Amino acid sequence: MSTVMFEKITIIGLGLIGSSLARVIKRKNLAQKLVAADASESVCTKVRELGLADVVTPDITKSVIGSDLVILAVPVGVVRTVIEQIAPLLMPGAVLSDVCSVKSAVIEAAAPFLPESADLVPAHPIAGTEHSGPEAGLVDLFEGRWCILTPPPETSIKAVEKVTKFWEACGAQIEIMDAAHHDLVLGITSHLPHLIAYTIVDTADQLEDDLKAEVIKYSASGFQGFTRIAASDPIMWRDIFMNNKEAVLEILQRFTEDLTAMQKAIRRGDGNYLQDTFIRTRAIRREIIEMGTKAVPNPALVPLEVPKGRDSE
Amino acid sequence: MSTVMFEKITIIGLGLIGSSLARVIKRKNLAQKLVAADASESVCTKVRELGLADVVTPDITKSVIGSDLVILAVPVGVVRTVIEQIAPLLMPGAVLSDVCSVKSAVIEAAAPFLPESADLVPAHPIAGTEHSGPEAGLVDLFEGRWCILTPPPETSIKAVEKVTKFWEACGAQIEIMDAAHHDLVLGITSHLPHLIAYTIVDTADQLEDDLKAEVIKYSASGFQGFTRIAASDPIMWRDIFMNNKEAVLEILQRFTEDLTAMQKAIRRGDGNYLQDTFIRTRAIRREIIEMGTKAVPNPALVPLEVPKGRDSE
Repeated sequence: MSTVMFEKITIIGLGLIGSSLARVIKRKNLAQKLVAADASESVCTKVRELGLADVVTPDITKSVIGSDLVILAVPVGVVRTVIEQIAPLLMPGAVLSDVCSVKSAVIEAAAPFLPESADLVPAHPIAGTEHSGPEAGLVDLFEGRWCILTPPPETSIKAVEKVTKFWEACGAQIEIMDAAHHDLVLGITSHLPHLIAYTIVDTADQLEDDLKAEVIKYSASGFQGFTRIAASDPIMWRDIFMNNKEAVLEILQRFTEDLTAMQKAIRRGDGNYLQDTFIRTRAIRREIIEMGTKAVPNPALVPLEVPKGRDSE
Repeated sequence: MSTVMFEKITIIGLGLIGSSLARVIKRKNLAQKLVAADASESVCTKVRELGLADVVTPDITKSVIGSDLVILAVPVGVVRTVIEQIAPLLMPGAVLSDVCSVKSAVIEAAAPFLPESADLVPAHPIAGTEHSGPEAGLVDLFEGRWCILTPPPETSIKAVEKVTKFWEACGAQIEIMDAAHHDLVLGITSHLPHLIAYTIVDTADQLEDDLKAEVIKYSASGFQGFTRIAASDPIMWRDIFMNNKEAVLEILQRFTEDLTAMQKAIRRGDGNYLQDTFIRTRAIRREIIEMGTKAVPNPALVPLEVPKGRDSE
């Protein structure tokens, strides 16, 4: 279906995203040679067992030698260390990319180390599951999903085009955006919801034992969706909050104001305030459903899961 | 499959839950005669078109005459008015039940009006979707779901048994609980999550237009799940918050404390606090998945949607 796009691709970090990338690169034959590098020996063993790459190595530094595309699929918290380590060995003309959920921090991390002969094209595929590790990867994880690229001004257009075609071959739809703006948008659509979900599950976790057991038993309701989000990778999410601090705190402040208003309405028995709000929020859902049916080329792949959705009151 | 359990069942309120009940009563032949009563003429027309009941009437008061089971499937905010209206016409030995998400308020609402010859068996089927109205009902909505009964002390055991068998025939699993305790447990598993979801979608709704459009576009992440919850019936949810005020405010207070701690950790860059919390919350997810595989008789009907769940970071 697709043809070879790169001579040699190195993926550093073989978790959910990295191993999904490896799977789709192999399936669609996007590289002559695929190198999988992960500092964890046990991850390397697993990747070898799964047969996900041509070369599997724990030596991250050397893994990039001769690669025309290097993709960092590590938590954003270690991006700086990894770039510092690999930068001297990147070949001239190499494209460095990543898959982190935070983009300004990646650009800042790369700035002091990246040689002029290499191009940085930060990427964020908006895709994932609650599962982690190389065995959790899915060959179709990026199918019909957005992938946002945030190239800094000094990046060559050619490098951006290469990464665009690569992600399109992986099934994604590309959008190019300023890194800071990306971080704000994702702060709202993803980081704050995760923070809220983690918090509410944490609140439940601190309940008296009997009550907690019942909450788990009868969780087939709003709470259950939160637990799925709150089961996401702890290290990755720690790093996201540490590296998108300003945007998250800004949007959290707005949320807290709105929650306080809601609390006050409940305390005062102001049913009109609640009803008006609930009618407004319903409209957003409609817009998302309309957007979903328009935006994604193959409706079978739309990740909305809308009509199946069952919740409880 | 099932045999006739009641001579005449009246369902008052033919929304999602009421019309799902009508469907399963007909499918499983649980009543000799099924009466559907709804104050809205347009709902009655729809119910007639769908052929959901033997008799369809907007006259709620008279609809209960001769019924041995009357089920209120109306928002909890109108329960008191409806009970006041129908109580004088309930036949001796009739069982009055409901499907509200709040239970103490129903018992309080019934107390001044219910004749001694009738029994109150409040019920809460933990099932639903984001959709509303008689056309949204599903014949298998209650399959494998919990239904919590909260009979007050004066209710006869026989009446509780009847309602238990009825819900079991609808596919549900029964649990009996004190009403106040139910309201606290559901305050955590359902009411607070809904409040949070409504709030976060409301926060997004108040963003500048451009940003809001992008939030909708890239919502295929944590946010999207929240919009589904925040698309639930506005009147129903207004009434739930107005009628479970104490429990919701109590648990909201705990949540706010935990959120403030999280905010402080982000501001101070306390990665350990975040990581420790995220590891703990992950454990609850595992318990729910284990519970789900143990508790529900037919795994095909488990509402968890766990392995399919895809989210994004």
